[in-house]
Amino acid sequence: MFEFRIDATSGAARAGTLILPHGIVTTPVFMPVGTQATVRTLSPADLETVGAQIVLANTYHLHVRPGEDVIEQLGGLHKFMAWERPLLTDSGGFQVFSLAGFRRVDEEGVEFQSHVDGSRRMITPERAVEIQAKLGADIAMAFDHVVPGGADESTARDALERTVRWLERCVNTHRELLEGWKVGRNEHSNLPTFQQTLWPIIQGGTLPALRTECLDRIMELGPWTGIAIGGLSVGEPKDKMYATVEVLEERLPPTLPRYLMGVGFPADLVAAVERGVDLFDCVAPTRGGRNGSAFTAEGTLNIRNAAFRTDEAPLDPTCDCETCTTYSRGYLRHLFAAGELLGLRLLSLHNVRYLIRLAEDMRAAIQRGDFTAWADEWRRRYQHTGVA
Amino acid sequence: MFEFRIDATSGAARAGTLILPHGIVTTPVFMPVGTQATVRTLSPADLETVGAQIVLANTYHLHVRPGEDVIEQLGGLHKFMAWERPLLTDSGGFQVFSLAGFRRVDEEGVEFQSHVDGSRRMITPERAVEIQAKLGADIAMAFDHVVPGGADESTARDALERTVRWLERCVNTHRELLEGWKVGRNEHSNLPTFQQTLWPIIQGGTLPALRTECLDRIMELGPWTGIAIGGLSVGEPKDKMYATVEVLEERLPPTLPRYLMGVGFPADLVAAVERGVDLFDCVAPTRGGRNGSAFTAEGTLNIRNAAFRTDEAPLDPTCDCETCTTYSRGYLRHLFAAGELLGLRLLSLHNVRYLIRLAEDMRAAIQRGDFTAWADEWRRRYQHTGVA
Repeated sequence: MFEFRIDATSGAARAGTLILPHGIVTTPVFMPVGTQATVRTLSPADLETVGAQIVLANTYHLHVRPGEDVIEQLGGLHKFMAWERPLLTDSGGFQVFSLAGFRRVDEEGVEFQSHVDGSRRMITPERAVEIQAKLGADIAMAFDHVVPGGADESTARDALERTVRWLERCVNTHRELLEGWKVGRNEHSNLPTFQQTLWPIIQGGTLPALRTECLDRIMELGPWTGIAIGGLSVGEPKDKMYATVEVLEERLPPTLPRYLMGVGFPADLVAAVERGVDLFDCVAPTRGGRNGSAFTAEGTLNIRNAAFRTDEAPLDPTCDCETCTTYSRGYLRHLFAAGELLGLRLLSLHNVRYLIRLAEDMRAAIQRGDFTAWADEWRRRYQHTGVA
Repeated sequence: MFEFRIDATSGAARAGTLILPHGIVTTPVFMPVGTQATVRTLSPADLETVGAQIVLANTYHLHVRPGEDVIEQLGGLHKFMAWERPLLTDSGGFQVFSLAGFRRVDEEGVEFQSHVDGSRRMITPERAVEIQAKLGADIAMAFDHVVPGGADESTARDALERTVRWLERCVNTHRELLEGWKVGRNEHSNLPTFQQTLWPIIQGGTLPALRTECLDRIMELGPWTGIAIGGLSVGEPKDKMYATVEVLEERLPPTLPRYLMGVGFPADLVAAVERGVDLFDCVAPTRGGRNGSAFTAEGTLNIRNAAFRTDEAPLDPTCDCETCTTYSRGYLRHLFAAGELLGLRLLSLHNVRYLIRLAEDMRAAIQRGDFTAWADEWRRRYQHTGVA
């Protein structure tokens, strides 16, 4: 039920197939982010149309609202959001450490204030796993301690140690829950008996020695069906991010799918696949789309620009999405100028399709065996402007 | 190109077929409102899915932003908004008379202040017709003088006289423009040679004598391919609105399609079809949808209500739309509670489908010849609460 096989490699880049309870995912893959059980502005039918294979949802947000018990009563997360394909839930770790306002971390877990009603709540490794079990995604993530991009060694070391100790607790809780399901003890719940896997998260800031140590200690707690690299794309320089992925690539077991959390922009995806990463998620396509920013083959553009007023061309002439095959830039600009919600949706749809197509193109290049040449040509054309 | 035939009648209710340059419309018909060249939150594909046959756009709004010249350069309104089926544009009369802020009416036209940039602008009958010609909808509306629901006789009389004088000027301008198109003088424009018809608007407040006089004087200026009843649903009591439609029904030529502007809520559509009306438009389904208000067979409900928190039922169990066949009320409530844009879209989609299906059901009842019995049964079930 949780298999991963490598279909082809080209340098460090890999094309793989990941088999999950709700379906098959081919990699490299970009996962659109459905923070609150919806990829903002898009319907499940839209997501199918743009080729989404797996969607990410946020444990912290769903715990706070509507609450995991509501989702469980309504049949679990897949049914709740009408997405019958694979789902991954993050653990809530990143969110509770990113929240403004009150937060208190101790060995037990994290006490924080809900951004919705201000109430004090506690998430522990055990709770994070229990909540995710109720949500019922195919892949659950371990509850980790995230530190900011510029964290010093003692802070990063401290978070690493806690992340490893918490991982043991996550594994124990997850095992107990799975055993309960296997013997059918889940009779008082609406949830069907199902399988869910738990992936650990490598922390350690941008310090190579800490990262590799964290990886080694995580591997001792396995076996695993996949592994994530966390705590990147949180403010550190891009070259540090790439260097960290490179260091890990040399030591990561080739048989495990590798998930680089919260990344990213098009150029980041290409650079990370070049360094052996298989899965990605990021809010950039939908957040950028709502701000009028669109990925195109030639870099990003902002549709609000007056230059597009009477532009008959599609948003990205190389794109096959509904937005690009139906509307002119002039119309899309009008929608943004007029504050029309359809504009937010059409740019979000395009941007998500853009990253999914980018992953598909990378997979094809890997299968042809010329990924490096493809990546060089892609970069030459894209000239990432960082606008989005 | 502008034919209307009656397919069946049941009492005063009529089922008809309207042939327009961009397609055929069966009546009774509800026209979704695309104020700014988009039916708020919905795509043209959504509109096709819910069975929309004709869409209304607002001349005033499109004149102010992006401007009719921009739309003409981008190929006309159909191409601009990617809606290749019939379109109707209102004249801007209703909007300029509803605007807050500066407004000066004289015989020449209406001077007003743009709600977008505050600039002073003038719309005259000639300009209203020219703008609509550039937009290129199948049906253009005459520029009329609208008065509030409670207007006294002298105000209503004054507006009536001006509406009739302005109508003559609209007709003359429209005839000149059409002749230009017919002999191909439109060579400097992107617009294809096309046919557009102009419909007059009956004013006269809620005073029966003024309404019938207005109708008689409009008929002298014909021939027409359709006729509208304006100045209703602007604050007058419902019974006055129904009585006004009834008075007109007796005198309206049966061969003309009749369009009741700005109406309405489900119960209004049923009452008006009972009184011989064929076409409707209203922002209620989309505006209400964005507020969480949904039409259902049992009346309106507001999805924000806490009672729906774990409700597994569809929004309206009798409905065939994507919203009702895909999601639970519990999920829809979550989307509204969480401020997710998908919620606005899914309720708008349902409400538009609701009114289109209502019109389809009325047509079927008329064709069966039992419209009165159907309407009584419908009302018994609906018990309009006026929430939406």
